[in-house]
Amino acid sequence: MFEKTIDPRISETDGAGHINNTVIPVWFESGRDQIFKLFTPSLSFKKWKCVIIKMNVDFVGQLFYGEPVQVKTWINNVRNSSFEIYEEIHQRGEVCAKGSATYVNFNFDKQKSEPIPEHIKSELKHHLYEK
Amino acid sequence: MFEKTIDPRISETDGAGHINNTVIPVWFESGRDQIFKLFTPSLSFKKWKCVIIKMNVDFVGQLFYGEPVQVKTWINNVRNSSFEIYEEIHQRGEVCAKGSATYVNFNFDKQKSEPIPEHIKSELKHHLYEK
Amino acid sequence: MFEKTIDPRISETDGAGHINNTVIPVWFESGRDQIFKLFTPSLSFKKWKCVIIKMNVDFVGQLFYGEPVQVKTWINNVRNSSFEIYEEIHQRGEVCAKGSATYVNFNFDKQKSEPIPEHIKSELKHHLYEK
Amino acid sequence: MFEKTIDPRISETDGAGHINNTVIPVWFESGRDQIFKLFTPSLSFKKWKCVIIKMNVDFVGQLFYGEPVQVKTWINNVRNSSFEIYEEIHQRGEVCAKGSATYVNFNFDKQKSEPIPEHIKSELKHHLYEK
Repeated sequence: MFEKTIDPRISETDGAGHINNTVIPVWFESGRDQIFKLFTPSLSFKKWKCVIIKMNVDFVGQLFYGEPVQVKTWINNVRNSSFEIYEEIHQRGEVCAKGSATYVNFNFDKQKSEPIPEHIKSELKHHLYEK
Repeated sequence: MFEKTIDPRISETDGAGHINNTVIPVWFESGRDQIFKLFTPSLSFKKWKCVIIKMNVDFVGQLFYGEPVQVKTWINNVRNSSFEIYEEIHQRGEVCAKGSATYVNFNFDKQKSEPIPEHIKSELKHHLYEK
Repeated sequence: MFEKTIDPRISETDGAGHINNTVIPVWFESGRDQIFKLFTPSLSFKKWKCVIIKMNVDFVGQLFYGEPVQVKTWINNVRNSSFEIYEEIHQRGEVCAKGSATYVNFNFDKQKSEPIPEHIKSELKHHLYEK
Repeated sequence: MFEKTIDPRISETDGAGHINNTVIPVWFESGRDQIFKLFTPSLSFKKWKCVIIKMNVDFVGQLFYGEPVQVKTWINNVRNSSFEIYEEIHQRGEVCAKGSATYVNFNFDKQKSEPIPEHIKSELKHHLYEK
């Protein structure tokens, strides 16, 4: 599991007084940094590989400004040229949002997906989600 | 169908050169303004009703800065105290993202969901998605 | 003057119930699109020219979700390799924010500023702010 | 001085490859959390006090995804009912952005500013910027 702690920001709340729902995908993406680094060790956008093709979020509980959140990131499964992430956001010890996202290993020069190298597959599998 | 035109912003692009994936839920939410207004005609947050419980997005094509996008919003179905939205984002005549979102009619004072009034159900049904 | 109308978004409000202050620079940047197009007609980031070096904002009045805003953009002055913008955001006919921003004409390949071409200077001067 | 470390996010970069300029005010606001807590210990928006009236930013150097930034926040001066903040953002040991912001102690119920309590003035003065 990859884990990152984030301080919610006032600018991430909305008029209803909680963290706005559109912030959750932003925090989830930030939680995937170590995964992106596996595919692009320099994190240079000129050598970028990971392209998101779908995502979903379940909003389980309200999130607030004033307390840090933990973003927890697992790998759900690894296929030939794509992989799926499972993610949760916790605050005060409770799961408040969970979701999944699917990425492909994309070659921007050729504009097509390509197989995930074996050493990356192997590393991703160290972070598999176990129910 | 509800429709809104949005100018993509530089701040919504990312280092890979396209609109960042986390912006799509933001545009989708903006496209739901007329729906929120049905539930809270004043749009006052003190009388807010609509609470999102889940959403998903399929990223079908790349979106760019420099050309307006159209956010198209339909109702997928209406239940007793919740409803589902189907949404698409188009640019240059092509669908680039599609998704759905489920909202409940929530009473913040009582902290529980309540039935959607008949006149709102009826209005929502004027915007049903037909395949 | 360049003018753009924007619908405020729920995600742009904050817990205090108004548009969060950090959104103003985002709307101002969006209002500068036609200026960026003068320097980079294709709006391609590979040929980007305009680099911001400073900005300031005066928050004159509260801004709300539920009513469109007008972003008004003027040129304050044009120098050899830089120019200054003066900007205002109006809602319901009132000025709610005003600010200025300074950009340089930057050559990313050479990593240095260069003189603004005469035809761009001339076009910018059509949009000068007159008190 | 108050200090906070932030991981830049992909969604905070733009097509030019760096952190977009509109993100700097967002990071600066996040760096002011401890100050907001002095005025509103519960951080409840219903008891909110601090209202920003102006800000400015100097963009001194480019900021990148992939390395943490440090947001450093000082008090520049304290007046009867307002105070001024001086802020810097550092990455890899270099100042990349600096700015200031002015807040008033605002009573939302009465819709007017009021004197800053002595114990808060005194606490703010422990964080004065010294050249």
